[in-house]
Amino acid sequence: MISCHSIVNLPEARKVAIFGGTHGNEMSGVTLVNLWINNGAEVQRSGLTVKPYITNPRAVEKCTRYVDTDLNRAFTTDNLSLPRIEDLPYEVRRAQEINETFGPKGSSDAYDVIVDLHNTTSNMGCTLILECSKDHFSLQMVNFIKQSIAPASCSVLLNEHPLLHYSTSRSVGKHPIGVEVGPQPQGVLRSDIFEAMRAVVNHGLDFIELFNGGMEFEPCTVDVYRVSGNMDYPRDKKGNITAMIHPNLQDSDWVPLNPGDPVFQTFDGRTINYEGESTVYPTFINEAAYYEKQQAFVITRKETLKANGIRASNI
Amino acid sequence: MISCHSIVNLPEARKVAIFGGTHGNEMSGVTLVNLWINNGAEVQRSGLTVKPYITNPRAVEKCTRYVDTDLNRAFTTDNLSLPRIEDLPYEVRRAQEINETFGPKGSSDAYDVIVDLHNTTSNMGCTLILECSKDHFSLQMVNFIKQSIAPASCSVLLNEHPLLHYSTSRSVGKHPIGVEVGPQPQGVLRSDIFEAMRAVVNHGLDFIELFNGGMEFEPCTVDVYRVSGNMDYPRDKKGNITAMIHPNLQDSDWVPLNPGDPVFQTFDGRTINYEGESTVYPTFINEAAYYEKQQAFVITRKETLKANGIRASNI
Ligand SMILES: [Zn+2]
Ligand SMILES: [Zn+2]
Repeated sequence: MISCHSIVNLPEARKVAIFGGTHGNEMSGVTLVNLWINNGAEVQRSGLTVKPYITNPRAVEKCTRYVDTDLNRAFTTDNLSLPRIEDLPYEVRRAQEINETFGPKGSSDAYDVIVDLHNTTSNMGCTLILECSKDHFSLQMVNFIKQSIAPASCSVLLNEHPLLHYSTSRSVGKHPIGVEVGPQPQGVLRSDIFEAMRAVVNHGLDFIELFNGGMEFEPCTVDVYRVSGNMDYPRDKKGNITAMIHPNLQDSDWVPLNPGDPVFQTFDGRTINYEGESTVYPTFINEAAYYEKQQAFVITRKETLKANGIRASNI
Repeated sequence: MISCHSIVNLPEARKVAIFGGTHGNEMSGVTLVNLWINNGAEVQRSGLTVKPYITNPRAVEKCTRYVDTDLNRAFTTDNLSLPRIEDLPYEVRRAQEINETFGPKGSSDAYDVIVDLHNTTSNMGCTLILECSKDHFSLQMVNFIKQSIAPASCSVLLNEHPLLHYSTSRSVGKHPIGVEVGPQPQGVLRSDIFEAMRAVVNHGLDFIELFNGGMEFEPCTVDVYRVSGNMDYPRDKKGNITAMIHPNLQDSDWVPLNPGDPVFQTFDGRTINYEGESTVYPTFINEAAYYEKQQAFVITRKETLKANGIRASNI
């Protein structure tokens, strides 16, 4: 067993993809990736193959989240093993194509790092999303990005919940990193959000270049928010929403929510309070795309992860 | 000729419609109108028929701006006089139906007041939109609403430009009033925006009730922003956008923009300045729905309108 504080050798990360347009109306990633497809100089790093890629071109064309089904939930084992026939939903066919190009998922041929660029209407600032608490390479990368953009803040969301975890586009890669920046309305490009996302990607690429170049990264800790549940909107018997996010909670992503704190305000002016038993950290508060998923916000708990020190094994 | 400072008699306003969902993803109006369809007590006033109405139910269902074409540009004389056949665009058929129910546009049978509820992703706050600078009833109503919600601010946009003027849903009524509240992302319901819109509508209805009840409204002045032009995004030869709203201009709706002030920031970091010859007041800055209309912002000029005093003629 490897101690938490040892330095471990990991394979170099030579193949990197930057995905934009997994949701076609999240404009920072769409715009950055298109920019880098036209001129890749900004994202090239020595010894790296960096491929900027639009994952859902039809949704981008229509400036909509998706065409038939959410691409960022489509990379299930079932979908990826379906026979390739014409009448599959568009995003399922795209998932198969993306898996062929950047995977296969779980294989040694898969891309080393896939950075997937998203925007949210929630006031989440810069957020990095991890899918595994034991991926020391990703934890080190996230730690490097956080340090690089400080004093600006950068939160880390860990989505490892057995039931709430879903099959993302980036999950095709060995080290999947989601970048979620907000608040930005769907279909809108804001310069502040654009530049924040751009900086995150560039710091991430710098990290990979340094790692491949032989730099040793010391053991470290990373504060993360671990997804532990979802909260739906209050509804009537027909399923219609009867309340909004309470003004105290609106825009308060990552702010501690304590039992008894207001969470919803009904249309007739009543306040509904949080009935959980302990302090949680809500995020994705009032995300436009989550109304259809029946999520008013995502519930997380704060945790500190330990990352091993790492160095590239081929040096 | 009537002097600007006289009190004129105007017909009572008995039939009032409140439109929501003219754009199906602008959630404050959609939610308020659905609420009032289920329970109209809040919007009833003595002596008034108030009809809350969803104008584009299919777009609301899909949570999209429109299905085939923008309903809020569809009330042209041409469209309204087309033979009613099945393969017309959905919104053209809806325009004909709405015109039949609440118009006909320009006729004495038309509804007296149509209040049409909209949201914007721009930082416009509460905005009332007028279509005619000589509609003294509407000017008095707007003045009443402004005074009622003070010290909160409420801007008035006058869209009377011969070329930029368009054929709105509300134009079916004798006194069309647009209510535009933001910032709010498409598909999102924010309690602050919801309550601001609700207050505006209620004050408007109070005004009509008082007017019908015989109250005399003194001559007044109303500061308005008159639409004078549009500004498109900078584009390359292929028509692709090459710059974003500059951070100094973003969220600065109604703030004076002077010649030489920054307006855009290109993706490679250059600043583009405003080249107009005089100070203007930009609004609808970075509105999501206006990318397809090639509008980065709307240019307005400040003006003070005089409204006659008014009283109801039947008293
Ligand atoms: Zn997304
Ligand atoms: Zn609208």
